[in-house]
Amino acid sequence: MPRLTDFASVFKKLKELSPRIHCITNYVTANDCANVLLACNASPIMADDVCEAAQITSLSQALTINTGTMHEHTLPAMLESGRQANLEGKPVILDPVGAGSSQFRTETALTLLENIRFSAVRANISEIKALLNGQLACGGVDACPGDEINRDNLQQSIMLINEFSKKYNTVTAVTGKYDIVSDGNSCCIIKNGHPLMSRVTGTGCMLSAFCAAMCAANPEDIFSAVIVAVCGFGICGELAWSEGIGSGTYRTRLIDEIYHLTWDKIKEKAKYEYFTP
Amino acid sequence: MPRLTDFASVFKKLKELSPRIHCITNYVTANDCANVLLACNASPIMADDVCEAAQITSLSQALTINTGTMHEHTLPAMLESGRQANLEGKPVILDPVGAGSSQFRTETALTLLENIRFSAVRANISEIKALLNGQLACGGVDACPGDEINRDNLQQSIMLINEFSKKYNTVTAVTGKYDIVSDGNSCCIIKNGHPLMSRVTGTGCMLSAFCAAMCAANPEDIFSAVIVAVCGFGICGELAWSEGIGSGTYRTRLIDEIYHLTWDKIKEKAKYEYFTP
Amino acid sequence: MPRLTDFASVFKKLKELSPRIHCITNYVTANDCANVLLACNASPIMADDVCEAAQITSLSQALTINTGTMHEHTLPAMLESGRQANLEGKPVILDPVGAGSSQFRTETALTLLENIRFSAVRANISEIKALLNGQLACGGVDACPGDEINRDNLQQSIMLINEFSKKYNTVTAVTGKYDIVSDGNSCCIIKNGHPLMSRVTGTGCMLSAFCAAMCAANPEDIFSAVIVAVCGFGICGELAWSEGIGSGTYRTRLIDEIYHLTWDKIKEKAKYEYFTP
Repeated sequence: MPRLTDFASVFKKLKELSPRIHCITNYVTANDCANVLLACNASPIMADDVCEAAQITSLSQALTINTGTMHEHTLPAMLESGRQANLEGKPVILDPVGAGSSQFRTETALTLLENIRFSAVRANISEIKALLNGQLACGGVDACPGDEINRDNLQQSIMLINEFSKKYNTVTAVTGKYDIVSDGNSCCIIKNGHPLMSRVTGTGCMLSAFCAAMCAANPEDIFSAVIVAVCGFGICGELAWSEGIGSGTYRTRLIDEIYHLTWDKIKEKAKYEYFTP
Repeated sequence: MPRLTDFASVFKKLKELSPRIHCITNYVTANDCANVLLACNASPIMADDVCEAAQITSLSQALTINTGTMHEHTLPAMLESGRQANLEGKPVILDPVGAGSSQFRTETALTLLENIRFSAVRANISEIKALLNGQLACGGVDACPGDEINRDNLQQSIMLINEFSKKYNTVTAVTGKYDIVSDGNSCCIIKNGHPLMSRVTGTGCMLSAFCAAMCAANPEDIFSAVIVAVCGFGICGELAWSEGIGSGTYRTRLIDEIYHLTWDKIKEKAKYEYFTP
Repeated sequence: MPRLTDFASVFKKLKELSPRIHCITNYVTANDCANVLLACNASPIMADDVCEAAQITSLSQALTINTGTMHEHTLPAMLESGRQANLEGKPVILDPVGAGSSQFRTETALTLLENIRFSAVRANISEIKALLNGQLACGGVDACPGDEINRDNLQQSIMLINEFSKKYNTVTAVTGKYDIVSDGNSCCIIKNGHPLMSRVTGTGCMLSAFCAAMCAANPEDIFSAVIVAVCGFGICGELAWSEGIGSGTYRTRLIDEIYHLTWDKIKEKAKYEYFTP
């Protein structure tokens, strides 16, 4: 199991390597994702036309695919970029936004999972359930009220997330009140973050982009990269908050905190524990 | 005519119900609309592909259609979602951005009005004129200089807005220096707001999204819902301002104020009067 | 060669005329571009469907074309709008985002340059090299590390930029550590700006939009208009900065500074010199 001291180099590599991240993402939060990537010292390029997708992937160090405002005609670009990244052994991250909210989104995410080997999947618990069971969820881009991970269903949720990781041979990061990162065998429970993050659009997408940057800098240790990204982003969410703040200012400060994030802050504030079922 | 005391429950229902709003909207201000919805305690989902549009509408409590960066291929999604919402009796809001600026936008908005029964239409006065008279406006997404509602043309403008409301059996909210909300019979003139709102992109779109949230929580009283939304948003615009502020900071604070908006603030600051021609 | 005193009227015309700018741009930074235009007293309209593109151009005072998230189906709209603007003698600005990052982007930008006469092209040095030599660049939307303009390669870079300007009969603004504006004969080196601008997405796109507004107000003197825009934007970048600021807050303040920009600030802080090879 990776230890806190191992994470220092994971974080430092991101700062040293300044990787380029190819994002095929939604138009709602693309700007936020680009700003998070620039803030953490990575470099974003958004490109979702099949005419250039694979070539852009070739010139990048990681690929992130987000189904937030999915269009039928974007799927070929996702598939070509995903295959190209797999061919070149580059990390690919999936954010299956809204899986379970429509048959189209669920099927699209399943098509991606069947055709691309993802290094990591960043999702909420309802999306994971929809992808495992094929059932229609409650319809939003947030976890359904009944699904939210709490102390009572924690163990059961972990079993599910492990199952998903094993099935798709991927690292899965499920975020919510508790964040859970699983590689199918080991599981890390992270308690960083702040409730206000759920009142700003795209914090999930931003975290997925941040995971992509961390994985791009650490392709040989995706599990650690995702744990560091999830802890780091949660810590930024904590630091961005102050009494009486509104959600507009909070969003701006969240980017500020990613810009100012250091290894020392992560070392001091990371709250995580491993769990083996 | 609804009274101020009636509005308390209208506003409180939004805070209690946390409705999900399906937005088929433009890529320029989609992020702002999503953040406004989250700030006011609603939950946005953006989806504009015909493969999923109707299903997403079914899982939402209201639908808002915005023609800001209209594409030919988005029209079928708008029509299917609109019909689905009508079928299920859910509120549908139209923001005919730029109607009159091109034949395409005017015709698209008219197609939508002829095929969908809208609970409310939120527009500027030039867009309403273009939709009533079919004529080409001056070309922007703001009201044409000659059209702006002032004390001299107030009565004439109200007649026009009433006519539009009657023709399409809808509540119409026209915003500008004066905001006018009409259900075809009664008319409410609202004087909240701040001039700086016109120097931030998407304040109209954000208000339309806010109206959709308020209508989703109050489907049985759309007229009141729209009045409260227009008053409330204008009050946020007033509170967001401070001497010497720039338009970037103002935009952030506008979202903050929506997050912090309470019934007490509306009660204290609402400036409106009814007018019957 | 235009002098500082000549620039006063260039800047004032923008404040007086409040031009409407038609933007065919990418979805990542469209919101920022719209807010920059509103902040500087212009009025944006985003429209990229071929059904309306030419008509929107007709009702605008300038057109800006940005290839940031280029789709194959957007090219016809770009070409029709460009031709319409040329026909009516209105300024057209090109921002060939990512030219050199994929064959598709390079070819698209070349198609645009061959079919439209651009008043100005705003780019980074790698994009200009890709468009002159047809070669694949390093793959990002920023200048490649080896390409960055510095004291050593300044003269060589200027030669290249002059060549590009002559070839396409345009004013070229290349931004980076040094900004260079060339009309093919004369060349202006501008040293305003701040390194943090490169850590916020879309500062290049925003500058292109700002150039379009300045050109719309000064169609008879594009060279001066672009110099004033580049100086002015760089000055805003300097003023937006303060010790310890994060990139989120910096982005907001950049818009604030454009809103607050005055001729006096430009007069006091502009750092430029002419250079004739």
